[in-house]
Amino acid sequence: MKNDRILLSHGSGGKLSHQLIKETLFPLLENPLLAPLDDGALIGLDHSQLVMTTDSYVVDPIFFSGGDIGKLAVSGTINDVAVMGAIPRYLSLSLIIEEGLPVADLQKILQSIQNTCRSADVQIVTGDTKVVPRGAMDKIFINTTGVGELSPRFKMSRKINLGDAVIINGTIGDHGTTVMAQREGLNLQGNLQSDCAPLNDLIRNLSDFGEQIRIMRDPTRGGLATTLNELAEGTELGIVIREEEIPVRKEVQGLCEILGLDPLYLANEGKVVIVAADSVAPQIVEKLRLHPLGKEARIIGRVEERHPNKVVLETQYGTHRIVDMLTGEQLPRIC
Amino acid sequence: MKNDRILLSHGSGGKLSHQLIKETLFPLLENPLLAPLDDGALIGLDHSQLVMTTDSYVVDPIFFSGGDIGKLAVSGTINDVAVMGAIPRYLSLSLIIEEGLPVADLQKILQSIQNTCRSADVQIVTGDTKVVPRGAMDKIFINTTGVGELSPRFKMSRKINLGDAVIINGTIGDHGTTVMAQREGLNLQGNLQSDCAPLNDLIRNLSDFGEQIRIMRDPTRGGLATTLNELAEGTELGIVIREEEIPVRKEVQGLCEILGLDPLYLANEGKVVIVAADSVAPQIVEKLRLHPLGKEARIIGRVEERHPNKVVLETQYGTHRIVDMLTGEQLPRIC
Repeated sequence: MKNDRILLSHGSGGKLSHQLIKETLFPLLENPLLAPLDDGALIGLDHSQLVMTTDSYVVDPIFFSGGDIGKLAVSGTINDVAVMGAIPRYLSLSLIIEEGLPVADLQKILQSIQNTCRSADVQIVTGDTKVVPRGAMDKIFINTTGVGELSPRFKMSRKINLGDAVIINGTIGDHGTTVMAQREGLNLQGNLQSDCAPLNDLIRNLSDFGEQIRIMRDPTRGGLATTLNELAEGTELGIVIREEEIPVRKEVQGLCEILGLDPLYLANEGKVVIVAADSVAPQIVEKLRLHPLGKEARIIGRVEERHPNKVVLETQYGTHRIVDMLTGEQLPRIC
Repeated sequence: MKNDRILLSHGSGGKLSHQLIKETLFPLLENPLLAPLDDGALIGLDHSQLVMTTDSYVVDPIFFSGGDIGKLAVSGTINDVAVMGAIPRYLSLSLIIEEGLPVADLQKILQSIQNTCRSADVQIVTGDTKVVPRGAMDKIFINTTGVGELSPRFKMSRKINLGDAVIINGTIGDHGTTVMAQREGLNLQGNLQSDCAPLNDLIRNLSDFGEQIRIMRDPTRGGLATTLNELAEGTELGIVIREEEIPVRKEVQGLCEILGLDPLYLANEGKVVIVAADSVAPQIVEKLRLHPLGKEARIIGRVEERHPNKVVLETQYGTHRIVDMLTGEQLPRIC
């Protein structure tokens, strides 16, 4: 590693995060199950195929429009299990709390955790609570680790193919902009709120498409741009997305222009990117749109031979620009 | 809850921790799998019986004599799976890092994680890394969540019975005293070091004893006293331990006297308390002593009718005193 100290960008989900994982964590922890760098791990235990995934949530502020750190911690981990083609079943819940946190805040967060678990039909089965002295951390951090059962109906190759369509279930950048605006004390207008939501129900509806769905990912830290780059990397194929097809809320676009941010790099917490055979893509979009969390589903791009290993944005003016992974850190503590 | 803010003692593992869990977390999260308040959860997935457990580690300092936060995070979670009578197989690893942490420190911690995983034959299968701005937390926190397969040979009732023996595999208070002394800058002499170690190999050796082992627990936060109180609670039976049988290192005893601490309440990170049928207790001790981590194994007490739901210490002078759960917080950030 070029740096001798950890930088904020090592946690951005972008280029430096990948470097940290590949150069520092992997050489020490490498094993075949960890290697694919997916959102979760496929583990086999006594004939059953399980998926296991973990995330720690450090979002600031802990309450935001459309959610809170509790709803986020449950939704985020559920989504990581679901995009692996598994049915999320069990969660662990580990709280690190700063001395002095109002108990009312904790109760509000726990209530939100319970509501999200119920609505997504998952159970918290084990937990842990640590309290650290005032000043040793900021308010509350939450880890959730999820275990799910692999659905036999999904038969994802986990690889993109030439001609595949790239689909998303709705607008991008909602979570990132909301958290950012609230942190900066900007007055939120219109219906700007985090998209934070568990997607397992929406995703389960797609299992009929079997092997025609190649891979799914949830574009959280690093945003859509980083997720697509991960999919294109090392495939000798490129992904071309069309700017005019990518759904972005007016309010998000407006805030991004004011703050100099690019919605392509902003975190989403209720979005799934689906790469699927072109022939079934319109049916997938139709199915997604029947669900409350997929009403604005669109085909946003295609897998092409041009631009191998790259992601390219075709702008509204017909020009093309390469969309790299996130470099640096746009928004620390976004999730 | 009587308090409207979270206190350090809510994380002590003692009385206020139990109150927080029972009064605030349980009503919101309750489900039959979470209810037993064990070190882990028994979950059934597709005919296999799994154990899942989680812990976040916030120990300060992150490097200490006998271990570091990495070794601790792997050992602690392995031990929670093992005392449930399961074979630990898979771990998730989630890092929350403060901006500015020396990369060399991270590498040292990861190396230690790898060494501990190898020696215990478990695999890290999924992970997450977050970086928070300088000052938003202290150095590094680690969450590990473990999944193991229930061993069919253990047939623990998970209940103590009249006449059962209480066994421990070695000296108490080593981890707590070491971390405390190092934090306070006290000069450590002799062989005072943390007992931090994975116990799965030691525990697996006991599976032949089947249902004659009733329950096992690892006495971490809150120490031996708190663990025994958890075992006695609600059983209408009492646990009587004999002071002269409880192994305590000279150095630990000395430091405790200077600092006004009681080894019974100090955290252990390489100890297991085993409640077993009296008839096989000597054989269990013998078996434990064959293992490097069980050389000082002893029978330290018995389950009696006297003192229902209480733990009682029979002192070296023949007097009896009630040993309550930890109240308040002796040592924040001990694990």
